[in-house]
Amino acid sequence: MNGAVVDPAIDDFLASTRARRLDEYVEFLRIPSISALPEHEADCRAAATWVGDRLRAIGLENVEVSETAGYPIVYADWLHAEGAPTAVVYGHYDVQPVDPLDEWASPPFSPVIVGDRVLARGASDDKGNIAIILQAAEVLLATRGRLPINLRFVFEGEEESNSASLEPWLAANLDRLGGDVALICDSGFFAGNVPAVTVALRGIMYAQIDVTGPFQDVHSGVYGGMVANPANALAAIIAALKGPDGRILIPGFYDEVLPLGPADRAAFAALPFDEDAARAALGVTDLVGEPGYTTLERRAGRPTLDVNGIWGGFQGEGSKTIIPGRAHAKVSCRLVANQDPDAIFERFRTHVEAVTPPGVRVSVECLGTGRPSYSPIDLPANQALARSLRAVFGQEPVFIREGGSIPFVATFETLLGLPVVIMGFTPPDGNFHAPNEWMDLANFENGIRAMVRYWEELATIPR
Amino acid sequence: MNGAVVDPAIDDFLASTRARRLDEYVEFLRIPSISALPEHEADCRAAATWVGDRLRAIGLENVEVSETAGYPIVYADWLHAEGAPTAVVYGHYDVQPVDPLDEWASPPFSPVIVGDRVLARGASDDKGNIAIILQAAEVLLATRGRLPINLRFVFEGEEESNSASLEPWLAANLDRLGGDVALICDSGFFAGNVPAVTVALRGIMYAQIDVTGPFQDVHSGVYGGMVANPANALAAIIAALKGPDGRILIPGFYDEVLPLGPADRAAFAALPFDEDAARAALGVTDLVGEPGYTTLERRAGRPTLDVNGIWGGFQGEGSKTIIPGRAHAKVSCRLVANQDPDAIFERFRTHVEAVTPPGVRVSVECLGTGRPSYSPIDLPANQALARSLRAVFGQEPVFIREGGSIPFVATFETLLGLPVVIMGFTPPDGNFHAPNEWMDLANFENGIRAMVRYWEELATIPR
Repeated sequence: MNGAVVDPAIDDFLASTRARRLDEYVEFLRIPSISALPEHEADCRAAATWVGDRLRAIGLENVEVSETAGYPIVYADWLHAEGAPTAVVYGHYDVQPVDPLDEWASPPFSPVIVGDRVLARGASDDKGNIAIILQAAEVLLATRGRLPINLRFVFEGEEESNSASLEPWLAANLDRLGGDVALICDSGFFAGNVPAVTVALRGIMYAQIDVTGPFQDVHSGVYGGMVANPANALAAIIAALKGPDGRILIPGFYDEVLPLGPADRAAFAALPFDEDAARAALGVTDLVGEPGYTTLERRAGRPTLDVNGIWGGFQGEGSKTIIPGRAHAKVSCRLVANQDPDAIFERFRTHVEAVTPPGVRVSVECLGTGRPSYSPIDLPANQALARSLRAVFGQEPVFIREGGSIPFVATFETLLGLPVVIMGFTPPDGNFHAPNEWMDLANFENGIRAMVRYWEELATIPR
Repeated sequence: MNGAVVDPAIDDFLASTRARRLDEYVEFLRIPSISALPEHEADCRAAATWVGDRLRAIGLENVEVSETAGYPIVYADWLHAEGAPTAVVYGHYDVQPVDPLDEWASPPFSPVIVGDRVLARGASDDKGNIAIILQAAEVLLATRGRLPINLRFVFEGEEESNSASLEPWLAANLDRLGGDVALICDSGFFAGNVPAVTVALRGIMYAQIDVTGPFQDVHSGVYGGMVANPANALAAIIAALKGPDGRILIPGFYDEVLPLGPADRAAFAALPFDEDAARAALGVTDLVGEPGYTTLERRAGRPTLDVNGIWGGFQGEGSKTIIPGRAHAKVSCRLVANQDPDAIFERFRTHVEAVTPPGVRVSVECLGTGRPSYSPIDLPANQALARSLRAVFGQEPVFIREGGSIPFVATFETLLGLPVVIMGFTPPDGNFHAPNEWMDLANFENGIRAMVRYWEELATIPR
């Protein structure tokens, strides 16, 4: 372990309990808590029970494996740090499915330790982070009998399906969720295993466009030139959504976008990124997008629009001479602070209707939205996390934004009114959602130290 | 029968042989000669043999059921009209498949006569026209012992699959295909059962566009804004092929188009056509296309461009947040005289490549071409046909153009060097290629008279 000493008593405890703690983590990983597959219902419930039991054993209070319409949310708290801040700590005990199983070097729920790696489904995402949280609380309570701040744990079991029960549960339990900050422990380090503070997630607006022409597919010879073609019309609509330069053409689309400030752009510029390597890995000739922004800024700091799927007419081998009766596209926008997904959908629909060529009918349906999440780099809780990571990992942490969307994160902001800190200790190449998922054991042990240090740092922030 | 008397002897023969002639036609219709289905090989060969036998029985000469790489081409001639023109007469003895079978009111190969209709697969397309040709030759040879002009019959058996053997056979048999005009007997009457002379068929250029981006589908959150989206790029390409006003934007596309002259436009204007009814039948709000032309002009007298199919990415229910790795479209152009399909494909490809946005690769493949076919309204053989139709059917015939393509027709023009007359007697609503195909028996009997009259008219045209 290379981490800075936090406290000799804590280091001693960690050293003397290492084998037992690793066994506990492995025990957690053995539970195949795949929330997306109904046949794993008992396993998901077993994982919730396991987490609840560990929380009680560690000394957390008010432990409750709280039923929902889906899988339980495990709640626990420790609220005896009078005058100190309160953090609501989030993680999820469910894991992704394991397909394709034949690409795993070892069975996904029979964890193996190879060198400094633990290989198992969930080793990183998110059981690795949960195990770090549990063991950080354990070492503090075991060595000092107390925690530096007040903690409320909220561990859900449906993150890998849809987090459907989380928001209703949060709304129903507002009275025991008061606090100063939410720690969303479901992310990890940047490329090169650099400690990272995640300051933003993009939101999403996902829509379907259906263009209707003739009542059925018609002969392109008999009707070509006479009747509008829904597939041509759909192409014209899509071409009118985003220019070839990557700039979105929907009126009002950028109106509420929080511009990237100098500190934001400096944080992007500080990230190691090899454009040539990225091009080669993707197999593309150029990385392209909205002018005026770097590649990393575009993929996480700016909104965008992409066709996710398009279809209509004949897709087989050879040729079939039809004008399709219908054509369809799924189109989604990734959104940034302070864009409102519902307002964006309305502008999207209005624009699609406005640019639809004559002779066809169009309908636009919203298939889903998720709010973007954002906390400034200079949020004291972000800066405190950076100090903790720097101290323990001996490396300057980076401030990153994720291009993807975790819509429930914004719920902690909007429903609980808490600033969020998005954090975690998983290696960037840990094969989350893929075969051979793994966790770095150095990240794991130092993650415990950094979590302890972070809670201590949070105690020093004026409320 | 309402037809004008052609010749009392002929009318007597037709009247006295009607039942026997109808039986022969029905016998022909009983043969399920579906060329597209390999299990009907024996039936297709039986149909060829049946045609050959009838030609011999009627008194045609040099009858040959000529083998090809596919189904036989039945050849026969009668060349004793010294000094008179020679017509090469084309028809096809194969028929379309019968799916969906459960929509037929009676079995497709058990012909039934209901009122003035014969219901069976092939009753119109094209066995009805072949039977008319055979019986026209029969009545002339039976009553006069001779024909007014020289005739060469060419009946193929692969028209409903792909006519693949026809061009090679024509090329290999040029020495016995000399003549003055080709009569392509595979069309019919206009809406309202108005006698028609078809003066043009559109050609076709059918291509596939494949746009390639990342090496596989990638996450739209992680990569959205960073990498070009092949589906968005494909939409931009398609939108750059044809403007919203229906005008094709490919440079040089219209260069060789034979403009519609006053006589052509007058012929279009003379056609009965109800725009409102067409709109309602198609289920569209507007009939749209290239400005400056009427609906009928656009659908048959002008070239056009249509997407026949488009696909890429996620097409299922709900949402999947990917940027597709590939996107594809099938796009075809209907062409008019004097456009060359190969030249059009080259301009198409050049333009697609020129308008492809950065960051993706594109490939354009030609899946097929067919030359347009055209003969002027004032072609003497067209005018002769019009006179014959007018005399026998007592109605002013219309000159029509078909929007569809029958690529082999141009082969008679280009390979044999013959002007073509595209003709036939099938009712416009005869359910060709559909369940419950039927032939009008008045069209059938008067078709024989009109064919006799036409051959007599052709004999009067100076060579």
